[in-house]
Amino acid sequence: MADRTRTQVGIVGAGPAGLLLSHLLALRGVDSVVVENRSRAYCEARQRAGLLEAGTVELLRTVGLGQRLDAEGLEHGGIYLQFAGERHHIDFRELTGGRWVTIYAQTEIVKDVIQARLAAGAQIEFEVSQTEVDDLDSDSPVLRYTDSAGIQHEIVCEAIAGCDGFHGICRDAMPAGLLTTVERGYPYSWLGILATVPPSTDELIYSRHEDGFALHTMRTPQVSRLYLQVPPDEDIARWPDDRIWGELQHRLGLPGWDLKEGPITEKAITPMRSFVASPMRFRRLFLAGDAAHIVPPTGAKGLNLAIADVTVLARALISLVRDGDPALADAYSDTCLDRVWRATHFSWWMTSMLHIDPHHDPFDAALQLSQLRYVTTSRAAATTLAENYSGYLSAVWLAG
Amino acid sequence: MADRTRTQVGIVGAGPAGLLLSHLLALRGVDSVVVENRSRAYCEARQRAGLLEAGTVELLRTVGLGQRLDAEGLEHGGIYLQFAGERHHIDFRELTGGRWVTIYAQTEIVKDVIQARLAAGAQIEFEVSQTEVDDLDSDSPVLRYTDSAGIQHEIVCEAIAGCDGFHGICRDAMPAGLLTTVERGYPYSWLGILATVPPSTDELIYSRHEDGFALHTMRTPQVSRLYLQVPPDEDIARWPDDRIWGELQHRLGLPGWDLKEGPITEKAITPMRSFVASPMRFRRLFLAGDAAHIVPPTGAKGLNLAIADVTVLARALISLVRDGDPALADAYSDTCLDRVWRATHFSWWMTSMLHIDPHHDPFDAALQLSQLRYVTTSRAAATTLAENYSGYLSAVWLAG
Repeated sequence: MADRTRTQVGIVGAGPAGLLLSHLLALRGVDSVVVENRSRAYCEARQRAGLLEAGTVELLRTVGLGQRLDAEGLEHGGIYLQFAGERHHIDFRELTGGRWVTIYAQTEIVKDVIQARLAAGAQIEFEVSQTEVDDLDSDSPVLRYTDSAGIQHEIVCEAIAGCDGFHGICRDAMPAGLLTTVERGYPYSWLGILATVPPSTDELIYSRHEDGFALHTMRTPQVSRLYLQVPPDEDIARWPDDRIWGELQHRLGLPGWDLKEGPITEKAITPMRSFVASPMRFRRLFLAGDAAHIVPPTGAKGLNLAIADVTVLARALISLVRDGDPALADAYSDTCLDRVWRATHFSWWMTSMLHIDPHHDPFDAALQLSQLRYVTTSRAAATTLAENYSGYLSAVWLAG
Repeated sequence: MADRTRTQVGIVGAGPAGLLLSHLLALRGVDSVVVENRSRAYCEARQRAGLLEAGTVELLRTVGLGQRLDAEGLEHGGIYLQFAGERHHIDFRELTGGRWVTIYAQTEIVKDVIQARLAAGAQIEFEVSQTEVDDLDSDSPVLRYTDSAGIQHEIVCEAIAGCDGFHGICRDAMPAGLLTTVERGYPYSWLGILATVPPSTDELIYSRHEDGFALHTMRTPQVSRLYLQVPPDEDIARWPDDRIWGELQHRLGLPGWDLKEGPITEKAITPMRSFVASPMRFRRLFLAGDAAHIVPPTGAKGLNLAIADVTVLARALISLVRDGDPALADAYSDTCLDRVWRATHFSWWMTSMLHIDPHHDPFDAALQLSQLRYVTTSRAAATTLAENYSGYLSAVWLAG
């Protein structure tokens, strides 16, 4: 028979969304338990996003997670858009009245929050299995899992947060027929590398090249991150390091500019998808981050959306379980979906503008170039890119 | 044997482009002959566009064609965008620093220019047949036609302007392999009506409705013009007047607003197409307006593009035939195509945002609504619509 305990909020998933939610709840005295299939080492090492909106950075600072971020994060005031052999700068600060973004890897945020949570004595259960959520029709939903020692647990919660990603269990646990999902697959993937070489650029370069999209971004002043558009079913074995560098030189190259090469320490192929499930809540089960929505990485919105979700969710749960007030919980899904749809549209827009689509005809290709020309010559059009990329009004977190 | 004469510029087509070109050339002492298949009465009656950019209005004023336009044109400072049961105003003046548009029908411009040209003793040959252009490899291209009395003519020109529309002969007369064309058909048409009833709105209403797009525009304070999205192969016999009004009420209706109905004096179905041919010139044969490019009517760009083309072309031809300087003629195609592609992209964008596409999936539909929401809530996004709709920097015509 399972060990049976209680907590206020059960959290499924120790990615940045689940961990940060646990941290925000603790700041207001709300207890939680986080359960995670993977090991702590895996969570702290997996390479994901690395670009934070200003609102995300301010939230992390406000809640005591800004120390290493402030020391190591790289502030960027814009991006470069490259097409037709030209490289144009989109100046976020100038276009939006001072907004910027920060390069700081998701893995670093995960490390920071795990350290803070464990120092505060929090319960994070890594390497669990057989995770289930149950009794969702009640006000006391149940979270079950088997811990790394093989012991079964059952936690009676006042609410459960599904922060368990696109392939997690929580979305599927919602009642049949409740969710509406819309989805778009893209006919290309990203081959991404980490390389031990200082970035060859001060800010990100997004390049629309006839032979496919390429992106030069970075992790630190010593580590570059680069991406190539590849076919959706591509085999990474077809991409030895010298072919990767050759193609990056080809798609990013411009006369008078050098792309510095270095040892590749990691390479992987990622498919591209847009996905939105709604509503993001059933009674006391709430979905946040990738569990509810996926954007292609072109607009750098996935991590920022996840953090915005849990910021809204933390306030709603505090209100619900501490004060017995369901108003914010009732509004949770609609509040999040406004931002989710703005980011979904923007991510689709950036993606469609910059990739070579094998199904496109010459009219589509001409539209792409026309739109890029417009974005780099009209102040209003450049501002639409800048304001979306640098982020929307941050989800409100009340300090103190 | 054909009657053989000379002129400086042979102009094929007595639509607004060809007529205005003839007028602009005459202002600088360059002779032209205009030939047109249709009758004068037909040209003066055919219903086409009716919305002029500020740059178009200023050009017409500058060249002495503004008298009736100023008296009868209706200035509009914006449009309404309607979707999801809400009507939003896009205020061009406020967003663009004072730009506006003017309602004045293309047929009225045609009447004004024909009157001015005939008063100046110009040669406009209506109801011609068997029109041909020849000797295009030489500096003396030839324009042949048979006049309304059956007499064959051959005019030796220094240049020929193809202002003969999408189905004209001039584009097809260009050497095989010279032109690149890109094209997009849309899976819907517009059913347009003219109705003798005062407009029910002060400015145009563009409505994205689940059952199809609708547009309320106007010709004069007494005449309304309205459009409905219909299937591309629709039979107009299926649309008796009461069905048209019923559907307009359904797609445009909002609580507290009345659509006034009146006698329908004209109805027609128009297909929607994007088309761009380039280059717009071969030696001394120049294409202008619909002969070179077609946009769907959603952005009201077709007439304005045609007038911009001939404004650029008039300067180029004056320079070529009067001063012997080919520089502007050499630049003609590139100069025009910058504007053509901006308008082509904008027209596609407006069209895709507002119509119901039978091939769309739920993700596409959600993107449409997300984009409409963005355009009506972001100043930058609204400005992109306003600056495109109200027009680009006008093609330069030097007064005096």
